[in-house]
This record gives sequence, C-alpha cells and structure tokens, in this order.
Amino acid sequence: MTKDTSSPSSATETSIPTMGRFPVLDRVNYPADLRNFSPEQLNQLADELRAETIDAVSTTGGHLGASLGVIELTVALHAVFDTPDDRVIWDVGHQAYPHKILTGRRDRIRTLRQPGGLSGFTRRSESPYDPFGAAHSSTSISAGLGMATAHHLLAKKNPAYRERNVVAVIGDGSISAGMAYEAMNNAGAADGAASRLIVILNDNDMSIAPPVGAMSNYLSKLMSSRKFLGLRDLAGKMVKHLPSRLERTAKRAEELTRGIITGGTLFEELGFYYIGPVDGHDMNQLVPILRNLRDAETHGPILLHVITEKGRGYRPAESAGDKYHAVTKFNVVTGEQSKAPAGPPSYTAVFARELVARAATDEKIVAITAAMPSGTGLDKFAKTYPDRFFDVGIAEQHAVTFAAGMATEGFRPFCAIYSTFLQRAYDQVMHDVALQNLPVRFAIDRAGLVGADGATHAGSFDLNYLCCLPNMVVMAPSDEAELTHMTATAAAHDSGPIAFRYPRGAGTGLALPEQGEVLEIGRGRIVRQPNRNGGGKGGIAILSLGTRLGESLKAAEQLSAQGFVVTVADARFAKPIDTALVEQLARQHDVLITIEEGAVGGFGAQVVQHLANTGLLDQVRFRPMAMPDLYIDHNTPDAQHEQAGLTARHIVATAMTALGAGCSAAQQTA
Amino acid sequence: MTKDTSSPSSATETSIPTMGRFPVLDRVNYPADLRNFSPEQLNQLADELRAETIDAVSTTGGHLGASLGVIELTVALHAVFDTPDDRVIWDVGHQAYPHKILTGRRDRIRTLRQPGGLSGFTRRSESPYDPFGAAHSSTSISAGLGMATAHHLLAKKNPAYRERNVVAVIGDGSISAGMAYEAMNNAGAADGAASRLIVILNDNDMSIAPPVGAMSNYLSKLMSSRKFLGLRDLAGKMVKHLPSRLERTAKRAEELTRGIITGGTLFEELGFYYIGPVDGHDMNQLVPILRNLRDAETHGPILLHVITEKGRGYRPAESAGDKYHAVTKFNVVTGEQSKAPAGPPSYTAVFARELVARAATDEKIVAITAAMPSGTGLDKFAKTYPDRFFDVGIAEQHAVTFAAGMATEGFRPFCAIYSTFLQRAYDQVMHDVALQNLPVRFAIDRAGLVGADGATHAGSFDLNYLCCLPNMVVMAPSDEAELTHMTATAAAHDSGPIAFRYPRGAGTGLALPEQGEVLEIGRGRIVRQPNRNGGGKGGIAILSLGTRLGESLKAAEQLSAQGFVVTVADARFAKPIDTALVEQLARQHDVLITIEEGAVGGFGAQVVQHLANTGLLDQVRFRPMAMPDLYIDHNTPDAQHEQAGLTARHIVATAMTALGAGCSAAQQTA
Repeated sequence: MTKDTSSPSSATETSIPTMGRFPVLDRVNYPADLRNFSPEQLNQLADELRAETIDAVSTTGGHLGASLGVIELTVALHAVFDTPDDRVIWDVGHQAYPHKILTGRRDRIRTLRQPGGLSGFTRRSESPYDPFGAAHSSTSISAGLGMATAHHLLAKKNPAYRERNVVAVIGDGSISAGMAYEAMNNAGAADGAASRLIVILNDNDMSIAPPVGAMSNYLSKLMSSRKFLGLRDLAGKMVKHLPSRLERTAKRAEELTRGIITGGTLFEELGFYYIGPVDGHDMNQLVPILRNLRDAETHGPILLHVITEKGRGYRPAESAGDKYHAVTKFNVVTGEQSKAPAGPPSYTAVFARELVARAATDEKIVAITAAMPSGTGLDKFAKTYPDRFFDVGIAEQHAVTFAAGMATEGFRPFCAIYSTFLQRAYDQVMHDVALQNLPVRFAIDRAGLVGADGATHAGSFDLNYLCCLPNMVVMAPSDEAELTHMTATAAAHDSGPIAFRYPRGAGTGLALPEQGEVLEIGRGRIVRQPNRNGGGKGGIAILSLGTRLGESLKAAEQLSAQGFVVTVADARFAKPIDTALVEQLARQHDVLITIEEGAVGGFGAQVVQHLANTGLLDQVRFRPMAMPDLYIDHNTPDAQHEQAGLTARHIVATAMTALGAGCSAAQQTA
Repeated sequence: MTKDTSSPSSATETSIPTMGRFPVLDRVNYPADLRNFSPEQLNQLADELRAETIDAVSTTGGHLGASLGVIELTVALHAVFDTPDDRVIWDVGHQAYPHKILTGRRDRIRTLRQPGGLSGFTRRSESPYDPFGAAHSSTSISAGLGMATAHHLLAKKNPAYRERNVVAVIGDGSISAGMAYEAMNNAGAADGAASRLIVILNDNDMSIAPPVGAMSNYLSKLMSSRKFLGLRDLAGKMVKHLPSRLERTAKRAEELTRGIITGGTLFEELGFYYIGPVDGHDMNQLVPILRNLRDAETHGPILLHVITEKGRGYRPAESAGDKYHAVTKFNVVTGEQSKAPAGPPSYTAVFARELVARAATDEKIVAITAAMPSGTGLDKFAKTYPDRFFDVGIAEQHAVTFAAGMATEGFRPFCAIYSTFLQRAYDQVMHDVALQNLPVRFAIDRAGLVGADGATHAGSFDLNYLCCLPNMVVMAPSDEAELTHMTATAAAHDSGPIAFRYPRGAGTGLALPEQGEVLEIGRGRIVRQPNRNGGGKGGIAILSLGTRLGESLKAAEQLSAQGFVVTVADARFAKPIDTALVEQLARQHDVLITIEEGAVGGFGAQVVQHLANTGLLDQVRFRPMAMPDLYIDHNTPDAQHEQAGLTARHIVATAMTALGAGCSAAQQTA
C-alpha cells in the first residue's frame, strides 16, 4: 500500500501500519482484483474489509454504523458487477467507506473527512467508481433511472451496445422520502428503459433514528412474516419472473416458487419485481443472487430486499442505541469514543432548552422534525412532550405543510430542519406557509459552513431563498444568548412565518439568560460604539448578521488600534432589516460593511435595496461581504471561514480598501 | 342574488341574468341551506350547479373540466359534513368553482380570475370554507393531517371537544407526487391523530395531460378489475372496518364483505382503509357513504376511491382531448372557445421550435417534463422524438435528478419546468446538479408575473434561488429571438448547469432567426447607444435583464426627450454577469439602473457585489429595480407590472430621483 504523500500530515499521522494483517485485502487495489476470488476468499475479504473500516474510522471519526452494515454487500456488488462500467449508486453515500477502500482509495481512507482528504460521501470528482455523488438522501433511484434510460437509448441505436447494469442501494429510511417514491413510480412504468435497473433496499430498520411511518411498518411486517428465502426459493422465484440465460438449469427449481406469491405486493403494484428478503450478511447468498440478476434478460426494474444490521460485526456498534451512526475517533478495543473537551453548549442544545422551557407555559407549541430528533435537539422536547412532538420521517416537504396545517388550527409549530435539508421543502415554505402568511416557525440548524460534512451539508443558501419571500421574517443570532431570545421571539410571533438560522457547533460560552426575551421584529442593536473624539461623520460601520459578530468585533479592535472610528452592530434580522439602524450607520460613517455567512443576495441585498431607495447608497461606501461563489470543501470550520473570506482579517482588508478607494480620505481620530 | 358592486366592471359586465333558472340553487347561499334537502333536491341542485358553473366559466374562462368532474362530490360533501367546522381541502383548488358557488361566493363567481375578483384557486383569505389555499398540487393530505392532528390534540385535552372531520380531495395525477406519498406514509402510521382524516382520491384518469407512472397504471387496474361497489357491499365493508354508530343496522350486510378483500392493497399497506371504487357522479351513493364515514368511530385514515369524469355533463368538454382543463371564454351552446387575436408566437412555442430544430442534429438532446407536455411546449418535441421525451408525472424532484443521471452519461437533458414549480426541486437543482456541475439545461417557463393565475403561479423567485448556486449559469432573454439564442446556447453548454427563464405569453413579434446562435457565456450587449455630444461621463445607464428591455427602451426615449444621455443594455446573463459591461456602464454614467422581473436579491445583487468589490459602487449612483416585497394578485399582466413598479414610468422616476439626489447635477446634453 503506497501512502498518498499529497495528503496533509494532519490526516495521515494517525494511520497505523496495516501490512500483513490483511492478506486478502492487500491484494485488492481495484474491484478487478477480486473478481476471480473464490467464495472463501470473498468471505475472508469481507472480514478484513470490516476490520480495516473499523480501524480507519477509529482514527478519523465518521459514519461507521452504516458502512459496517454493507460490508458483504459491497464485496458482493464489486465481485459480480463490472464496475465502474456497471453503475453502483450508494444512496446518501455515507455507507460507502468500504466501497472506497475497494475502489482505489484505501491508501487515503485515513484522510476521510480530514482537510484535503477523502469526502465522507460518494463524489464524482473523487473516483469513476462513484457515478453519482450524494449526501442528501433518496436521490439514487432517480439518478439510476436516468443512467439506465441513457444506456437504453444507446442500446436502441446500436444493438451491439452492452446495456449497463445500474444498481441503486437505498436504505429503508431513505425510501420513505417522496423523491424515492416519485422515482419508483416512474421506473415501474418505464418498461424497457428500466430493464437493467436494480434497486437494493438495504433494510436495517434504522435511519439515523429508528425509522417511522407506514412504509417502515410495512417493511417490518414483510420481514417478520417471512423467513429469509433459501437459495433454491430464490432460483425458483427468479426463473419465474426473469427469462434467464441460466433458465435450463434453474427450471428444476420452478416447483419451489409456491410460497413466494405473498409479500412484496406494494413494490409489485408499483411495477417492480420484488425479491427477498435476503440475508445481507450472507455472502454465499448475495453473490449468486446478484449473478442471476446480472445475467437475467430482465424486462423490468428489480427491487431486491436485503436485511442488514447497522454496525454489524463490531460489538460496541451493535450494542449502541444509534449503532455508531456517526462517531468521533474511538478506541478500537473498547469502542470508547473520544469526547470533545467540555465546552459551551451547542446552538442546537440552547435552542432545544429554550423551546422546552417555552412549551411548559404554552401548550400550543408543537415541534416537528424530519427524521432528525437528536440532530435538531428535539429529542429533549420529545421526552418532555411526547404528544406534541412529530417525527414525520425523511419527508421535509410533508413536514412543512403538516406544520402549516397545524398553524391554521391555532397551534404554534416549530419546524426544525437543517438549512441544507430545508431546500427540499422550498416550495412548501413559499406556497403553503409564506404565501398564506401562516405562523410556522422554522428553526434552521447547520446554517453557514459546517466543517467535516462539507459542501453538501453547508447551509449557504437559506438567506437567499427565504429573504426573497414576502411575509417571511428571518433572524440570525450572533451568539447563544441571542438564540434563546430568537426562540422566544419566534414563539411569540403569531402574525406570520418566522425563521431563525444558527450554526453547527458550540456557542461562544456566554452565560445564558434565565429565559429568552421577545425581540422587536426588525430591530438590530449596536454592540460597539465608536470612541468618537471629533463627532460627525467618519469611520467604519460593520453591520453583522449572525455569528460573524465575533470576527466583526475583532476587526473593529484592529481597526481601532490603527486609529479608525469603528461602530459594530448586530443586525439580528436579515428581513425585515432595521431601516433606522441602517440609515443611521450609513449617515454617520464613510464605509458601511455588511457581513453574513451565506451566498451573495441574502441580507446584503436587502440592505443595499434600502440604501438605494433612500439615496443613502450614494453617500456611503457600501461593502457587502458574503460567501464566495464556490462550494467549500470539508475542512475545519476555521479553515472554511478563512477560505470564505469571512474572518476579521478580511473585514479589516475590506474596510481599508474601501477607505483607500474614495477621494475623501479616511477620517482618522488618532 | 345580490351583485357584488365592489367588483370591477370588467368582471361583472359579462354576467347574465340567472334568476329563475335555478330554483334550487337560488335557495342556497351557504352549505347550511342545503343540509336538509331531500335526495331529489340534492340531485336537482347538482344539475343546476353544473349549469351555473358552465355558464359562469363561459364568461370568465378558467379551469372548467376539473370543476365539472366534482359537481356531485361537492354537493355531497357539503350536504354531509358540517363545513366550515369540518374541513374540506381541495387539492390544487382549481376544481373548487362549484364549491365557491355553494359557499357564499355565487354572487362573485363571474369575477373569477378577473382583476379584483375571486381567485381561480382556493384561498384562505377569501372564505372560511377554504381552510387551506392551494394551486400547486399534492399538498392537501399533509395540510389535512396537520389539521386532524391539531384537533386530535385538542380532543385529548378536552374529552368534550368534537374532533373535526378533515377531508382532502386529491386527484389521481396529484397523488403520484412524492409529497402526497410522504403524507400518506405519515398518516398511515399516525394512529389516533388521523382517525378522522378522509382522503378522497378523485380518479378521473386525467391530470392536465393523461397521467403517467406506475401508480396510474395501478389505479386503472384497480378500477377495471372491479365493478363499482353497490351500496350493500359498501355497508358490509364499512361495518367490517369501522366500528360504527350504525353498526347494528349495518351488521346484516356483513356477509357481503367477501369479494372486497382484493384491491386497494397498496393503500392498505400504507395504513389506510381503502373503500371503493365508487361512482363519483351518483349522488345516491356518495351521500350515504360519506354519512357512514362521518358517523363511524374510525380508528385510522380512510382512502375513498371515487371515479369521476373530467368535463362531466357538458358535451363539448367530455369530447375534448383535454376535457376543457383550462378554457378561454366560450359559447355555452357550441362550446366554441374564443380565440386570442392572431399575434406573435408565445415564448413557450419559440423555445419548443428551437429545441426541436436543435435535436434534429444533436441526438444527445433529451427533454423532460413533469406532467406539463403542452404547457412547456414539449408536446411538439414528443411528437418528433418520442424516444427522447420523458414525462415523469407530477414529480419535479425526480425530474431534475433523473435529468442529472442522464447528464452523467453524456446526454444533454432539457428539463422544462415552470419557475414556480421548479421550487419543488430546489434541493435537487443544488445537490444533484449544481454541486456536481452536471450539464442539465433548465428551461424555466412562466418566469415573472403570470396574469390570471396570480401569486401562486408567479415566477418571482428563480433568480434568487438559482443565482446563489455556484456553477449555475442563469440567462433571461429580452425577446423571443434572444430565446432562440439562449436555447441554442444551453444546448451547446456542456461544462455545467445552465438555466434560462422566460415569461408567460406572446413574444414581441420580432422576426425569428433561422436558427439560434450560441452566445458567449457572461456577455451582455448594448442595445441603445447614447447620443453623446460632449463625450465623457454622464447620464443614465439602464441594464435590463429579461423582457423589461422594452420598458427600458421606452424609458430611455422619454429621458432622452428630456435631454438626458441614456444607454440601454441587455444583460442576457443574470450569472455570471458581464463584468466588463457593468464596469463600462458604471464608469461612463452618473446613474446605473438594473431592472429584473424578480424579487430583491437576484441579478441586482450580483451586480452590486461586483461594483462593491471593484470600488465602482462609490462612483455611480446605483439603483437596482426589482419586484416589491409582496405577493401580487391575479390581474392583467400590465396591471401587475404597474403594481410591481417595473414599467417605463417607474424607470424614469428612478432615474430622475437618482439624478436629483446627488450633489453633482445631472449632465444634460441638450
């Protein structure tokens, strides 16, 4: 195994010697290397792959449980299918660590989620073995059907063209999202175009939290009402449905097809051939089944129902409540995860604490999550108020309109959804909530840059897609005390929709108020008054939205040390903006900087519109600071902010450039 | 019947005297008036309601076919349920004209879709009988479950509280959208909370176009494999499932329950009680069934499968291919619709023409619609290239990621979706297309204000939600010739995603080029050079994005007549902006105006960011013009543009105010 010398030392320092421990795995650089392995070797490979995955993630942290659940499936898929020509799409992609190890990336697997290292999800730019990148759930069947359709068109034109197999591996949590249903609905009626589409339902009865909903109940029923199919049952079943090149040999098994008529009907009604359930950890079953599917001249999409266990084969994961869904670095022997040093509570926890407190005296408060009870902190709410807590599953669209329905009846719904996932429900936010001016509260976690999860999970666009909506109030706290106020403000705001967006991670360590105060809508606050000797106009105003306030204050100190007059204000509201404050800052300063942790067109655009409307834009050097026009890769939050150009240093530079640009020199007080 | 004197004369002039023709309908102002009607009277009411609906829509135009399909259902629902305390939610809401007639709005029904008149959809602000507004499809089950859950919580607290019935009426086209599935998945496992939720599947085997997909096939099979249930079958079926207050009398029918075990399994697997199919035009069946549902102490959500005929009872509608889905004014006797005066082709038609032409020489071009083949013009493409055309049903999320999948395989997908409906797929545009930099082409019809369809259909936000996405190219044509160029440009743009947005309605009448030219990405054009006598800096630059160019040129003429120097440029690209052009305009003019038909934060925000970054913002009076922060009601397009402040008059005023605001006086050349 060669070491990737280009990866940063921070990522590779932690790698441990593995040579010799993995005699079979060491022979595999790419899937072609394992295709001639014997069944025994494949089993051995799976064992070694599991050990290597555990070892690697113990040094990096990451999504361990899901990867351990698909070890055998990963080996079997690459053993049977001609990847990368055949397409294997991992839904979400967080279970693809073993896939990465087998597809030319073992030498960098200990850079996973590290700066400059491998992504924690599948990614097209990383490998041709990743035909479709992911991170958000439930996209794989749509993408797979698109690919299958493309190959079908090519084959129609050119009979010699070998139609590729397209395999989408999707979890039982992800398949409950509407998008997956839309794709199945289309595939089930797509006739020839979907004839080489294989959907593998990876049913581990877990998403991040236990899955909810009727589909989950249905799958449980399917599973419990039937024992795993034996090999002979499967052969019989397949010969029934799938005209196969193996038809003659398999025909003997035809009499075994009785008993498989039950079950799977929901998928069959949607036009799929249902096969299963199958033990997803039994390589000796998986490989022959997949081979049969590969070799069959199928005439419709297949749903192969595979039962797996999240965290499989690693005792600490198996026995953990969340099956080690996402872990920090850990001790392989004990399973003990390294704890972050004790610090201030996270924004998530602060929000949850205040919401639980509010709900004690306001029984109209209800809380809604889309399959993220712990990620959003609502698990605390659920414990205290189980009747008023609703986990609707991975179904953001439904979550928002469900909340709108409750709001029409006088309830006060808090819809807690990450910034990036609220994109899934944009039309519902606009059409069902904002247009109808319904008081739904959006608690938008993971706003701004998010560290190791990278660009797919960054909350970069919520200010853009929300500030443009009439009726919508948009807030961003500058620290965790402000978050308690905004939670309280949202609870009190019955006249229309309101959103507040806050970052991933720990707060600033501020003492929290006993309880949140209800803020006046559309009013910011000045947090740093300049030391004005001369009075009158002059100097720099920094109007910060959200948690860039700390950097703004740092920048103010630095500028102040250079003798400049600097005012710093906390906008609090991205919309409606505090017009009086904006006007005051514009009138009293040479330079007005706005800063926000979001793309161009959000808060800054609201401010410039008002400045232009009032003519004040001509009287101040206005400099909106926002995120640059690029997707920022996974990295430390500090490095991401540096790359985004949103640190004190950048504020100072912006101010100095603006001051230098004008013909009226900067007014210094020194 | 009193006439609503507050409605504008344009809307009421066309009303015809109806008194005396409708002896039963004339007695009904609100649903309470019909609750004691005999079965004969209800049948008579339905006949009169149908005639009145036809008559009204003949004078206003609108969605006739869907309304005619639910006449009996509308009467039955209001006869049985205690509306508005019981909630009846019409999915989409375009079938609610008869509902409006029966709920206090008959006196204004001939103002439908007219300026100042009734909305063409349900609307909370219009009536308490509209508990949830709509226009986009597939929201009703989510909203209904939210309402049912709210009432369930109230009933839990207060045993005396009467839990409301919540009825969601949803079409077979709409139920194929992912959102409806998410809602059913949640409702089917919601236990008590959904115990008074009744979903009525209004199966007319039509959405705007014939429905597609596996669900549609399944429903057809359900319907064709079974005859309508007789009353006694239904009684038997219901006594089986629903512990009823009528249990004793109904028990006799229990032996009839055999034979209803088949069918409906898909919905039953999702946790619903399935009842049907039922003849939706037989009032004598509908009323008793709904009464039984109302009186049953249900313990789960119901799906009542009702078969109706779109356009029912009006011969011209029944025999039309689209069942009079949406009509202009028409002659009631002949059914002949009034034709718009011959004029320039629509933007839709121009796009379709160019795409079909391009596809002739480029076999990698494929076209995708989400249930809008004729609305997007892709019906023409489908006729010429049936293999390369994909209607995925009402499934925008899937449509976009399906297109992304095809793009990964080297195809050139055009995804044609209205601006307002693309909101449904925002996350897919970001996560599956833009982030992966896949060359999917978005043909965004109905951008900007859309006239009679109103705020729910306006394309106000696409510039906001697209310009913020890294990798995304966003164009807007200023006329139909430009649209041909942009279609060609999109076809040629293989390096990443590209979108072009164009308005509803007819083009300007310009001669179309033989074929579109491929534009340089990020380059605008100057369309009006000023008559500069003195040279040097001075005057006004108007940088227009999209079809406001006509008004910009008008404004330029008016300003020029007053002696001002005016340059007009067509930006073509909202992103990337033409930085050289922007810099040139800023350097050479006192005032720089941008104008776009979208909300604050789109194109103008891109321009101001560049001006600020270069310091040019300090040297020009910048005035971004965009849509105001409000939802603009249905009206004529001209009146909407006037309300939006985006006409020549407003541009002139903006320029004059800007010129007057500065200390350096406007430079006049006269």
